[in-house]
Amino acid sequence: MSTSVFKEYMNGHVHHEEADIYESDGTLFLTEAFKVIVEEILHKGTDIKQKVCQWTEPDQLRSLLDLELREHGESHEQLLKRVQDVARYSVKTCHPRFFNQLFAGVDYHALTGRLLTETLNTSQYTYEVAPVFVLMEEEVLCKLRSLVGWSEGDGIFCPGGSVSNMYAMDTARYWAFPNVKTQGLWAIPRLAIFTSQQSHYSMKKAAAFLGIGTENVFIVKADEMGSMIPEDLEAKIVQAKSQDAVPFFVNATAGTTVQGAFDPLNHIADISERNGIWMHVDAAWGGSVLFSEKHRHLVSGLERANSVTWNPHKMLLAGLQCSVVLFRDTTNLLMHCHSAKATYLFQQDKFYDTSLDTGDKSIQCGRKVDCLKLWLMWKAIGSHGLAERVDNAFSLARYLVEEMEKRPNFKLVSKRQFVNVCFWYIPPSLRGKENSPDYQKRLSKVAPTIKERMMKCGTMMVGYQPMEGYVNFFRMVVVSPRLTTKDMDFILDEIERLGNDL
Amino acid sequence: MSTSVFKEYMNGHVHHEEADIYESDGTLFLTEAFKVIVEEILHKGTDIKQKVCQWTEPDQLRSLLDLELREHGESHEQLLKRVQDVARYSVKTCHPRFFNQLFAGVDYHALTGRLLTETLNTSQYTYEVAPVFVLMEEEVLCKLRSLVGWSEGDGIFCPGGSVSNMYAMDTARYWAFPNVKTQGLWAIPRLAIFTSQQSHYSMKKAAAFLGIGTENVFIVKADEMGSMIPEDLEAKIVQAKSQDAVPFFVNATAGTTVQGAFDPLNHIADISERNGIWMHVDAAWGGSVLFSEKHRHLVSGLERANSVTWNPHKMLLAGLQCSVVLFRDTTNLLMHCHSAKATYLFQQDKFYDTSLDTGDKSIQCGRKVDCLKLWLMWKAIGSHGLAERVDNAFSLARYLVEEMEKRPNFKLVSKRQFVNVCFWYIPPSLRGKENSPDYQKRLSKVAPTIKERMMKCGTMMVGYQPMEGYVNFFRMVVVSPRLTTKDMDFILDEIERLGNDL
Repeated sequence: MSTSVFKEYMNGHVHHEEADIYESDGTLFLTEAFKVIVEEILHKGTDIKQKVCQWTEPDQLRSLLDLELREHGESHEQLLKRVQDVARYSVKTCHPRFFNQLFAGVDYHALTGRLLTETLNTSQYTYEVAPVFVLMEEEVLCKLRSLVGWSEGDGIFCPGGSVSNMYAMDTARYWAFPNVKTQGLWAIPRLAIFTSQQSHYSMKKAAAFLGIGTENVFIVKADEMGSMIPEDLEAKIVQAKSQDAVPFFVNATAGTTVQGAFDPLNHIADISERNGIWMHVDAAWGGSVLFSEKHRHLVSGLERANSVTWNPHKMLLAGLQCSVVLFRDTTNLLMHCHSAKATYLFQQDKFYDTSLDTGDKSIQCGRKVDCLKLWLMWKAIGSHGLAERVDNAFSLARYLVEEMEKRPNFKLVSKRQFVNVCFWYIPPSLRGKENSPDYQKRLSKVAPTIKERMMKCGTMMVGYQPMEGYVNFFRMVVVSPRLTTKDMDFILDEIERLGNDL
Repeated sequence: MSTSVFKEYMNGHVHHEEADIYESDGTLFLTEAFKVIVEEILHKGTDIKQKVCQWTEPDQLRSLLDLELREHGESHEQLLKRVQDVARYSVKTCHPRFFNQLFAGVDYHALTGRLLTETLNTSQYTYEVAPVFVLMEEEVLCKLRSLVGWSEGDGIFCPGGSVSNMYAMDTARYWAFPNVKTQGLWAIPRLAIFTSQQSHYSMKKAAAFLGIGTENVFIVKADEMGSMIPEDLEAKIVQAKSQDAVPFFVNATAGTTVQGAFDPLNHIADISERNGIWMHVDAAWGGSVLFSEKHRHLVSGLERANSVTWNPHKMLLAGLQCSVVLFRDTTNLLMHCHSAKATYLFQQDKFYDTSLDTGDKSIQCGRKVDCLKLWLMWKAIGSHGLAERVDNAFSLARYLVEEMEKRPNFKLVSKRQFVNVCFWYIPPSLRGKENSPDYQKRLSKVAPTIKERMMKCGTMMVGYQPMEGYVNFFRMVVVSPRLTTKDMDFILDEIERLGNDL
């Protein structure tokens, strides 16, 4: 759209007496920038003929972006160019060939919700200041809980899955020892946390941040597919008790970060119940299977958990960040654990029902509105559409594995449970050399080299990592609903192309 | 702009072979919704002839919004109506008469940065996936530190000031007792935190969350203006030591939430240094005075702190959320304290300088990009423009106090240091009745009643609260740069109008 069309549009506003230069200039800039955003990110950025990323060395990028902040401001045109530069040099996570993280793609309704959220610029603490969002959060949490299998309960939107996991851990600690809130950990026995070796690193971060200490996280063994071995959980509970530590928190994972493994939830629930331990499920990645009739069996037993972390910003494409922690508890534990009753914010003599001022459940004061993007997307495509999104990702992952099995240059690391496909590319020089003494060492260098080449070509982005007992391998994750089997074929072809001289 | 114009605009995209129905329908919706957002929020929402809020009872609002999430999706038109409804029933925090929180107004460049951030949808953990933002965060933090007075140091953007304060507390704890990270609080002596009675409630939330306990927060007395009394800090340190608690963290406040008071930083720094205690300054609200030559003396001594919290989303209008915690430390304490070295994300064999992968400093895994909105706004108006914004707010607050002193119906609670103006409105029935036995009780009901009326009229929003020794009073805060003395006059007139029958 030309600038003149936008100006004309803006002129329509001038009849309002209060419209001032500030507002009309501001809106004009915003509108022109919006055009750049649509063109550079949503249009070019989703076009497979364009690059996923424009790799630039840090020093060069620093100078291209002219990052320095100065005494005086810049012109409209100069600022629009800055918008363009930021868009141009940023990775296009909405590009169909972006597979680097557990988020990807773009949902236009969710994005609309996000722009609306940003423009409304409010904080999710009281009904007074965020009436729509207080009620909307309540509704969305209720619906997510019902998918877990709970007709009642509690929950909160958090800035990411790691923080959601922290909430669960803190609430569990308060449930076990309520005096910890006032007296601290010195007043209670040493605590023990249990999580599998394949679980997310946020468990250790949480243990450190909450003052429990990383050494009080007992690491439970996982099987080859990445699922927790329940027998080892029992052994680790016995071990902790023998060290006079009190087991209070078991973290099971539904969809591990690397392999996409699901822990056996019913078995873990049995053990947790028997030992009187709070069971949390980190379903940040895998929770979305709840939408799918076909795949929800993977989280069978989830309803027996005390708390669940779930990130709709991953597989559902709600956009960063959209993470919830849900609680089965109906005794207002979340509020009791976190409230500080600030009188300047949570006045009790307000003229409306102050139970709607839910902000005191939070460890934050101001809290971003994260429910609208999910709500609007859900309204747009329904539970049915979200289920299709999940089922489609599974189908493509299955296809990818099948195709990989047809090609001798690819070797799977482990059996697939979810949409993560972990594999090695075996380059020509290593084929048939499995028994060479330096095979593993040489194989470990293949993924980083191919990764460097794909970044520099900008054709796609796929992550790699080592894992205990395994040298560097690729992890492909299928998330975006726009993908087709053609994209899966492309990935295999492209890795072969990038690695065929190795 | 008419739908046809937008369609024409979209048609320009059709020559790209890969443009598909999904993208063009999606962009069309987004573009039409953008038009609604501009009209309802930025245009009507900033017009003083329109309401700040459309007060609606919760049950009525629930039904108006039709919040329920269903099996099937909705039409384009229906969804656009939903965007309109969300905008309509939300509080317009960008309205010139919104004074309810420590944020208000709208900066169009910051908002542009936010829309760009949302559309790019990335996470601030590695150079690989967020090259522009890793470098930009570095630059913005460096510039903010230089305003504090530090040529070196560290820092991170956090989801709000409460979390920033938590980072400071956790880092201080690790600095004092590094083994706490692995062994937990059981391995170290009971800790003591010091903060004034006027400080933000996040100190207590942090103490609880970090496992230290709220009773280990020693509350230091403040004077009538709201500033910490240093002699009482010394007394409280002695008291803590006598209870075998180890003082490790003093929180001074630069700009208290209610009164806008500044603690005497140099005096507190002397005491902290003498006792070997980490000094943190919660300058979430007041930090922005650093831009102003005229007012930066209020934070004299800030450079002696070990860490500083500062929220550019408040007085600078960067938009929610934009909060940083800055550190004077140059030993990589932040990273040592929080790192978990996840191999799937922070691979050490990458082809670029992995010191740019700063995400392991964070307690989060995915972390929202919060630097762009501040950077773009800063580029747009320069340090000079930001300074003007601060100075303007001070001028208006001074004007408001002067006008209040001319009107016998208003009584100031305490002397003004910053842009917070705390006052009672004395309605006709209470004038000259200061000595009545029920005067305080009756006065305490005035602010809530007027607040209810202003919300229901929708003419403005101003917060009220009680404070130790004081019954409910209003707190006016001047933030938005669009305000004039006319707006200040309006507030006084409107409160008189709303309360003249009380």
